[in-house]
Amino acid sequence: MKVGILGGGQLGRMLLQAAANYTAETYVLENDPGCPAAHLCHHFVLGDITSYDAVYDFGKGLDAITIEIESVNVDALEQLEKEGVRIYPSPAAIRIIKNKIVQKQFYKDHGIPSSDFVITQNRANTEAHADFLPAVHKIGEGGYDGKGVQVLNTPEDLVNAFDAPGVLEKKVAIQKEIALIVAQHTDGSTAIYPASEMMVNPALNLLDYQISPALIPEKVLWVAEAVAIKLVKALQSPGLFAIEMFIDINGEVWVNETAPRVHNSGHHTIEANHCSQYDMLWRIILGYPLGNTAPILPAAIINIIGAEGHSGPAHYEGLEDVLKIDNAFVHLYGKKQTKPGRKMGHVTVMHSNYHDLTHKANKIRNILRVVSGSKS
Amino acid sequence: MKVGILGGGQLGRMLLQAAANYTAETYVLENDPGCPAAHLCHHFVLGDITSYDAVYDFGKGLDAITIEIESVNVDALEQLEKEGVRIYPSPAAIRIIKNKIVQKQFYKDHGIPSSDFVITQNRANTEAHADFLPAVHKIGEGGYDGKGVQVLNTPEDLVNAFDAPGVLEKKVAIQKEIALIVAQHTDGSTAIYPASEMMVNPALNLLDYQISPALIPEKVLWVAEAVAIKLVKALQSPGLFAIEMFIDINGEVWVNETAPRVHNSGHHTIEANHCSQYDMLWRIILGYPLGNTAPILPAAIINIIGAEGHSGPAHYEGLEDVLKIDNAFVHLYGKKQTKPGRKMGHVTVMHSNYHDLTHKANKIRNILRVVSGSKS
Repeated sequence: MKVGILGGGQLGRMLLQAAANYTAETYVLENDPGCPAAHLCHHFVLGDITSYDAVYDFGKGLDAITIEIESVNVDALEQLEKEGVRIYPSPAAIRIIKNKIVQKQFYKDHGIPSSDFVITQNRANTEAHADFLPAVHKIGEGGYDGKGVQVLNTPEDLVNAFDAPGVLEKKVAIQKEIALIVAQHTDGSTAIYPASEMMVNPALNLLDYQISPALIPEKVLWVAEAVAIKLVKALQSPGLFAIEMFIDINGEVWVNETAPRVHNSGHHTIEANHCSQYDMLWRIILGYPLGNTAPILPAAIINIIGAEGHSGPAHYEGLEDVLKIDNAFVHLYGKKQTKPGRKMGHVTVMHSNYHDLTHKANKIRNILRVVSGSKS
Repeated sequence: MKVGILGGGQLGRMLLQAAANYTAETYVLENDPGCPAAHLCHHFVLGDITSYDAVYDFGKGLDAITIEIESVNVDALEQLEKEGVRIYPSPAAIRIIKNKIVQKQFYKDHGIPSSDFVITQNRANTEAHADFLPAVHKIGEGGYDGKGVQVLNTPEDLVNAFDAPGVLEKKVAIQKEIALIVAQHTDGSTAIYPASEMMVNPALNLLDYQISPALIPEKVLWVAEAVAIKLVKALQSPGLFAIEMFIDINGEVWVNETAPRVHNSGHHTIEANHCSQYDMLWRIILGYPLGNTAPILPAAIINIIGAEGHSGPAHYEGLEDVLKIDNAFVHLYGKKQTKPGRKMGHVTVMHSNYHDLTHKANKIRNILRVVSGSKS
């Protein structure tokens, strides 16, 4: 079977590591021949995943296509779907999710708990909603990794509001942030991974570290799982979905955002769950039964982020000390250049008790640094 | 770091899946551009791993080289080692192991328990040792996967003895066959995987299936581990070593053969041990600390072998049923053509109790078939 991946970043890289368990012939479309996934596929195609022609030409000889990022040309995917190419997730699901206005409206229409919101067309329009603050302002299309997301606490913040269509979401009094990954097979069966719990670094709006299974009351987990399954069923698409949720200070669950693909909140599933999210997506694409999502041990993910003040050839400080830690596993994404805040890799560490686990996670965060330097 | 692999088969394929956790730039030398590992490396080089020039030219710009098969040009590796290329395992260790006469003599010289033997130069010479039977006759160089190995039970069998230098080894009254994988770091530290226990199919002389950890008395395991460590220390080489041993009917341990590389007896470590044998070898090559060899769950490996009477494009029957089994993981090696007895892949299955584990292993053996057919 010929399977294409739109996007050649680290998610594509890890997908391709898992792909080699099967006989799929793999294709990657990406506009950077040095991208993390380029050397791990059978056929690398240079091109722009946002271009209709590039995506259509890439896909028209393939049996199936998946994505590692939402910002792809959905029109081309819809045409390919009509012509019989199987798309994971469906173009309709990508269309709902890639625009945060449409995504938010979808939650409302399907009774998925998500914070109140107003749609904004431009800055002037946003400024007219001063009474809706404090809120989080998200750009409709093109946001990624915290870009295109603004926290607007007071009317004074409104002068900085982006001047583009977006959605203004009531700020939730967050107790915890969790993410659930749900796999949905073409036959409609689903499998759900244990929830992950994250700690966000407010400066970079990237995960500081994350633990899984999340430490939340069973009843809250049940609600979160029910909401996640309801959401994925409503999307009516095969594929893998990561649902980011807030648990508010009253223990209520609110969906923040969904990603229709393998997700950074599931990196630990490679070592810490029997069937990784990457293997799971291949099982769906290739028509095999879903795998076992059970955890092996509690795990933490620590992102490896380019250090402030360092731009240039990447050098990893502290790797050896990290790998001395029992059950610490490093994943470097093969990006040659570092810059401040760039995701360069991650570490998964596992331990049977959470106290030691968080201690190890903090230790790893403090040991590991990505700097630019002559060493490599 | 630029790292080359001599050989592009399934072991190279799985090594490269693991390599993408790190930043190593990977090279593969193999004379088949459609080999299992070809598409997973940064640079595929077409060439013959037994040729001095091919191996030397391949290796001279690299930082390190490893092997996935012993039948490589050791002279070239020795020259490269002199020029500063790091070789895992050392050329000296490969030279000892790749010739079964030298390997056997090495065990004797270093007090490693191994069955009595006589060296044979040709068929006439072998026929003169009728009084040494029953014995196993192994060709000195070039044997692989049961080829070049003969069981000579009676003087009548001697007419079929191969007519080349070899070694005639006293037949051991085998109770069990086990294998131990030992990782040896450049700093001399070692890590040992739990023993695996195998069942051999006498017809093909390929593994029928294998379980790990082996079900052997603790005192026998201690001896086996001590022998394995002694052997690897004597080889004085960094790298990964798989030591195949017999346990005789009296519970004595005898070394059969050693492989100086990742090994089919360690496939299950991908899912069933925290640090896989593939990750472990990269840790050694890249100078990182050794990983955790502890088992996650008892596991069985079932080889996926080309069915008798089928030669041609490979088609896998029963894959879906196998993947329905909880904690069954399929690894297909991407070989386009099947033929009787060809290793096409393996399945790892895990279960907490051995009764259910062996039941599952037998079920998988009976479900899965590689045939030639129009389907793919």
